[in-house]
Amino acid sequence: MILALTPGMGIGPEVTARSLSESVPAETVVLLGDGAIIAAALDAEGVEHQQCSTVDTAPVGVSILDTQGAEPAPVRAIRVAAEACLAGAADAMVTGPIHKEKLIAQGFSFRGHTDMLGHICGVDSVMAFAGGQLRVALVTAHVPLLEVDSLVTRERVIHVTQTAGAALRDDLGIHSPRIAVCGVNPHAGESGVLGTVDLEQILPACSALRAEGWDVDGPVSAETAFMSAIRKEYDLVVAMYHDQGLVPLKVVDFGRSVNWTLGLPIVRTSVDHGTAFDLVGTGRADHQSMQAAIQLAVQIVERRNLL
Amino acid sequence: MILALTPGMGIGPEVTARSLSESVPAETVVLLGDGAIIAAALDAEGVEHQQCSTVDTAPVGVSILDTQGAEPAPVRAIRVAAEACLAGAADAMVTGPIHKEKLIAQGFSFRGHTDMLGHICGVDSVMAFAGGQLRVALVTAHVPLLEVDSLVTRERVIHVTQTAGAALRDDLGIHSPRIAVCGVNPHAGESGVLGTVDLEQILPACSALRAEGWDVDGPVSAETAFMSAIRKEYDLVVAMYHDQGLVPLKVVDFGRSVNWTLGLPIVRTSVDHGTAFDLVGTGRADHQSMQAAIQLAVQIVERRNLL
Repeated sequence: MILALTPGMGIGPEVTARSLSESVPAETVVLLGDGAIIAAALDAEGVEHQQCSTVDTAPVGVSILDTQGAEPAPVRAIRVAAEACLAGAADAMVTGPIHKEKLIAQGFSFRGHTDMLGHICGVDSVMAFAGGQLRVALVTAHVPLLEVDSLVTRERVIHVTQTAGAALRDDLGIHSPRIAVCGVNPHAGESGVLGTVDLEQILPACSALRAEGWDVDGPVSAETAFMSAIRKEYDLVVAMYHDQGLVPLKVVDFGRSVNWTLGLPIVRTSVDHGTAFDLVGTGRADHQSMQAAIQLAVQIVERRNLL
Repeated sequence: MILALTPGMGIGPEVTARSLSESVPAETVVLLGDGAIIAAALDAEGVEHQQCSTVDTAPVGVSILDTQGAEPAPVRAIRVAAEACLAGAADAMVTGPIHKEKLIAQGFSFRGHTDMLGHICGVDSVMAFAGGQLRVALVTAHVPLLEVDSLVTRERVIHVTQTAGAALRDDLGIHSPRIAVCGVNPHAGESGVLGTVDLEQILPACSALRAEGWDVDGPVSAETAFMSAIRKEYDLVVAMYHDQGLVPLKVVDFGRSVNWTLGLPIVRTSVDHGTAFDLVGTGRADHQSMQAAIQLAVQIVERRNLL
């Protein structure tokens, strides 16, 4: 197995190095980014490494592919890793954190990894999280709250639920996932008293999904959906927007959860934390999420190779 | 101490009766609502009770004040209890769940208890929760998500934070509460990349609050605010809207949390659950939240009486 790993920025390189110092998860691991920073992080953890100039010529073991160039190294790293996966030169990509504001100032035009990978692969990607107590897929993610109502369409709810349901079935082996689809408004709109999108978009989306054979409840009040999921009554919660899904997820699963991009023709997982520049070099950055991200990617590739 | 308690609807009467069968928390407890339903619930738990016709003539022990009349009994119960508190005939009121959709069909015109009590008392009430691991105050509550952005004003953020901060200080004895004020948008707007209300309304509100001496951070990304509060880095999270505050609260504190209305001239606490009509009479309704609500009300009254 060949893993393309972009350590990213901030604490990314050190949590990557620490993970690899404990175990090298694949025959070949290619680390893409600013070569000098990655090499320093690996040296600090005593991880042996080589250099390579393309993913498809990478040697066995851990190697660095320096992506310094016209665009910022962490961005070019994502692009080269994704293209290697698309070309079949790598089996999966795992990403560390990037600092969007810093990159936007340098010309980065995406809302994050998920958007950028959707663009590179030419698909409508879905942001999802797994690995802890909760599995969550997001209908909208990095958009202002004011735009959520108009972005929650019947089509998008169906697409996200189908994509996430299929990923649970095919990549995690959950035969018939039980899915809670949240409402947008408080108490899922209280039967239309609080907003209309729950009844007009989400309710018909759920009916359509059930007609296709998906085991879907919705629109469910988000409080109920997450409580029930923690009690193992649902395998997946489809949340309508960022904070609705990520606040309970982080509260319950911080450090264990993996950001998993669905709907791509490639396998991509990521840490669930940010760059945490204040922790860089302090030894206090927790590498559990990077380990979990690597583990999920490896598990998915192994499962697909078996089928 | 005289406690006015409105058991409300659904499982409300039975969780009230079960709480009172374990301990009667005040010299006098007056239960207001549909007299026959409340009497049946008390009888089922073996709680002795008398009748009364006004709160100020209620006998020592547990008594029922039947509020059947022109408006639905559960609504009139809230009105009579609040008026008794305002008149000094009761020290505090504790409320069980009501079913808003059912009551709206019968002419109820409020968004819930918090709104109705604000109206009766002629003040801008604040919905807050305490009793478990998290304390949360809401800047907006039962409104469609689409209206949140325009309702989060500098003035409202200041009012809610001051009101909740003062309640923690005066009623819970937390000398200088450490407060996280959430942003509205994902990652608190990412420095203005995702929406404007975080920078234009919440940021200046936080500066104004700090200038008054409040220990306030904000706007903080909601994920960070709640995780930090669980780690005891904050005493209070001020959430901007219903699901932002209540989804993490219910996930962490369900059954232990108390709905506490702030900014009123009276003391009012409530259960954090709904009417759960499907559980009525099954013996499966949990009375922990009612007990916690009674306990918090009693504690606040005792503390105020000491000062």
